[in-house]
Amino acid sequence: MARSTTRRTVVTIDVSVSPAARRRQDHLTAEEPLEIRVRKKPLAVTMRTPGHDIDLAMGFLLSEGVISRAGDVTTAQLCAGTDTPNTYNVVDVVLDPSVPPPVTDPSRNFYTTSSCGVCGKASIDAVRVRSHFDVSADPVRIPARLLAGLPEKLRAAQRTFDRTGGLHAAGLFTAEGELVVLREDVGRHNAVDKVLGWALREGRLPLTGHVLLVSGRASFELTQKAWTAGLPMLAAVSAPSTLAAELAEEAGMTLVGFLREPRMNVYSGAHRVTS
Amino acid sequence: MARSTTRRTVVTIDVSVSPAARRRQDHLTAEEPLEIRVRKKPLAVTMRTPGHDIDLAMGFLLSEGVISRAGDVTTAQLCAGTDTPNTYNVVDVVLDPSVPPPVTDPSRNFYTTSSCGVCGKASIDAVRVRSHFDVSADPVRIPARLLAGLPEKLRAAQRTFDRTGGLHAAGLFTAEGELVVLREDVGRHNAVDKVLGWALREGRLPLTGHVLLVSGRASFELTQKAWTAGLPMLAAVSAPSTLAAELAEEAGMTLVGFLREPRMNVYSGAHRVTS
Repeated sequence: MARSTTRRTVVTIDVSVSPAARRRQDHLTAEEPLEIRVRKKPLAVTMRTPGHDIDLAMGFLLSEGVISRAGDVTTAQLCAGTDTPNTYNVVDVVLDPSVPPPVTDPSRNFYTTSSCGVCGKASIDAVRVRSHFDVSADPVRIPARLLAGLPEKLRAAQRTFDRTGGLHAAGLFTAEGELVVLREDVGRHNAVDKVLGWALREGRLPLTGHVLLVSGRASFELTQKAWTAGLPMLAAVSAPSTLAAELAEEAGMTLVGFLREPRMNVYSGAHRVTS
Repeated sequence: MARSTTRRTVVTIDVSVSPAARRRQDHLTAEEPLEIRVRKKPLAVTMRTPGHDIDLAMGFLLSEGVISRAGDVTTAQLCAGTDTPNTYNVVDVVLDPSVPPPVTDPSRNFYTTSSCGVCGKASIDAVRVRSHFDVSADPVRIPARLLAGLPEKLRAAQRTFDRTGGLHAAGLFTAEGELVVLREDVGRHNAVDKVLGWALREGRLPLTGHVLLVSGRASFELTQKAWTAGLPMLAAVSAPSTLAAELAEEAGMTLVGFLREPRMNVYSGAHRVTS
């Protein structure tokens, strides 16, 4: 079964005491490769924390623009990898015949470092995966005071799970501040994909009237992912990038950064944050 | 020219004061796509903070196992992108004829989300890019007290640059704790690639006797990158993953995590950290 943490012997050193070093057992965040296949054909490998892997694959295909609703997928199953028979590190997806398969010819495929997520497009123009949803007219309004309290709700929910200090979190909230779903992962983009894939499988897209809160920074890619799920608001505990703010503005999405009670910055769509 | 930050009007809200909202100018971390081409052929797109782009491309090719020394590259030049004529978002690399070009046939190419960096390999077995350097026998020893002071040195050096709160940092240090080079980026993997690419271009590989310090977490990918540069030690301010610890052990590399004065955890190669 999927392990989200693993015990390991570590040497803990504290130079302010003597003796400084001692051996102890520690919990580490699990990180394993997940291969996403479409009709048996490898499409992507992502380094993720095992668990909610089908959701991760669905969220990935959603935010790459391959699918936009649960019906676009006929089956999705987790298979044992050939190299490590006891772990499940392959998701095989069969798309509905009406869905065009992802383009995989060499001129449109790249490999890339992390913090990318825009791979698979041959031109820089093509980095923007067009969302199927228009979020600009979403009438939701959220009081600043309610928003300010969301990070503490996310952390409180995280405490149940996280013994390692090594996990990014993404939480989907209603406009009333109720946590709908929380996912954690060693990669922040995976945590978001797991939330979005869950929502897609539950038939909840577009996520009209909801807020997605992420524990770290807001990148271009996370903003794009939020857009593909029809989210009118993305909030981040840390800084956004220029391109995240520009994309949010283009989408008509509200982007909140440095959300740390009692303060926050609103980078676009400030009309949705009420006093 | 490359911009590492951009000014933008934001609405700052503090729910503990009245009126809560005010408009002000803020600096945001620039994030723009960089396309890496080998002989005019697109190989990867990464979302990065502009600056040190040639180093970034070199570090990327190093850690993907395409090149291992400066002589493997004939020319590398920054070109204006076709879509945004005023920015320089393409690096075109010409490899020495003796260097096999990167494999780009479809069965070996994926696109992938962030926190990956293992793309371009068709099998999960292939995620490990073999380093050209053996780091296991590196005789360097570093006192724990000196290590404990490195994060503050990194932060002090960062203060000169960072006005945005949105940048990851990677710093290369000597065994005596001297900062050799610091690079920052919206993506932590890019920050590391910029350091490694700089070292490669300076003819400093393998980085025997050095420590690489990263401001965030230690993933499998960052550990792999450090190995490809011949680094005997990787230190991270935050948590490592299981696979990072396992890879470091396999490589004979020292992996330090949660490096926060006066404490740290050593996950492998503890013999190099002396009291």
